[in-house]
Amino acid sequence: MTISDASDNFTSEERQALYKIILERRDIRSFKKVPIPDDALGRIIQAAHQGPSVGFMQPWDFIMIKSIEIRTKVKELFERERQAAAVFFDEPQRSHYLSLKLEGILESPVNICITCDPFRGGVVLGRNSIPETDVYSTCCAIQNLWLAARAEGIGVGWVSILKQMQLRKILGIPNHIVPVGYLCLGYPTEFPKRPTLEEVGWRSRINIEELIHFESWGQKSLEEWEGFSDSLPNGG
Amino acid sequence: MTISDASDNFTSEERQALYKIILERRDIRSFKKVPIPDDALGRIIQAAHQGPSVGFMQPWDFIMIKSIEIRTKVKELFERERQAAAVFFDEPQRSHYLSLKLEGILESPVNICITCDPFRGGVVLGRNSIPETDVYSTCCAIQNLWLAARAEGIGVGWVSILKQMQLRKILGIPNHIVPVGYLCLGYPTEFPKRPTLEEVGWRSRINIEELIHFESWGQKSLEEWEGFSDSLPNGG
Repeated sequence: MTISDASDNFTSEERQALYKIILERRDIRSFKKVPIPDDALGRIIQAAHQGPSVGFMQPWDFIMIKSIEIRTKVKELFERERQAAAVFFDEPQRSHYLSLKLEGILESPVNICITCDPFRGGVVLGRNSIPETDVYSTCCAIQNLWLAARAEGIGVGWVSILKQMQLRKILGIPNHIVPVGYLCLGYPTEFPKRPTLEEVGWRSRINIEELIHFESWGQKSLEEWEGFSDSLPNGG
Repeated sequence: MTISDASDNFTSEERQALYKIILERRDIRSFKKVPIPDDALGRIIQAAHQGPSVGFMQPWDFIMIKSIEIRTKVKELFERERQAAAVFFDEPQRSHYLSLKLEGILESPVNICITCDPFRGGVVLGRNSIPETDVYSTCCAIQNLWLAARAEGIGVGWVSILKQMQLRKILGIPNHIVPVGYLCLGYPTEFPKRPTLEEVGWRSRINIEELIHFESWGQKSLEEWEGFSDSLPNGG
């Protein structure tokens, strides 16, 4: 069996679809007041559950939130955290930071909190050396969810300006469970062409060549890897 | 603009492609001795670099490894860790664990270590409340990479049975940089239909309904969410 005729391979169209979805995924903070159909939401959650996990641990849970009462509490927590974080920026960054819209907790039709249970499944194969692989797995599941949502035309905004301890209290999450991601889902007013923080001049995309090392850390070019370097968008 | 005619949306075929890629992604431990073309490897790394990151921090780096000398050292580290982890299993699990093939460090044509730099970009927007969001971002990038590889017909095996401190030494990674994922990439002998650990009876897939909570932790059914519950594969 050669590579090109392997039945395991995807078509060029299928590959392109994935790359387009990855390229056009955005962190969304402005939502239309349109509900998400149950079947689309179901597909998105299933995509997350098909994520990889260390020792097939599947450490994730999904708390599905529509209640305005609960979301108002989360929004209040966000507001406190936003103010607290502003203290660490100097002007003019502080004003810039405070001017940015960073969440859509109340406008989006659905919020989802994705958690990680470090105790699920007892002694987990592959988790002895790096216990944090439980959280790593949960993040991979979240990325599946994020891409699935994008493919459905649904935007996801990850609200990281929340303290996990207080969020546990609002959602009744036991102390041993880690609330990894708090996501807002809904149809966005738009999918911006570039990340918002790039768009507003907060931070630039790093040239990919700066991030690549060959054989060991800091080795930035190597003859054996020249073909690969040339294949990169800024390579050659 | 209605949802269905939004130009931002993907076609049904594109959506299906993503779901198929997500469903057929596997952790691969057996590889063919076939090199990965540079352009495919370049696309896979770019997909990772398009991952989401807190405050557009882009905390990741990629160490590309082909050197047999370096990979032999990683393999030796794996072997030690594998033996150490076996100590924590009782029989018959221990023998079962030791019989499993858990990596393809030397057979695969390329290994990639993906790291996280917690200091990149100074004070990062959105990282004040949960500093670990740098590692979360790196894991999302890894999942992009994993799906892109799958779409290219390339298998990825994440080797988590490695101590980060020793891995740093082998790859010359500075102490403040976290080696998050050590991946083996190559064309697999097969993409198994189900996860290997499910296949060999090590652990089962959890029924998705057990993982879903409504409005708060532990609330397993709620009238407002009945339509959603019914939409799940085991729902109704």
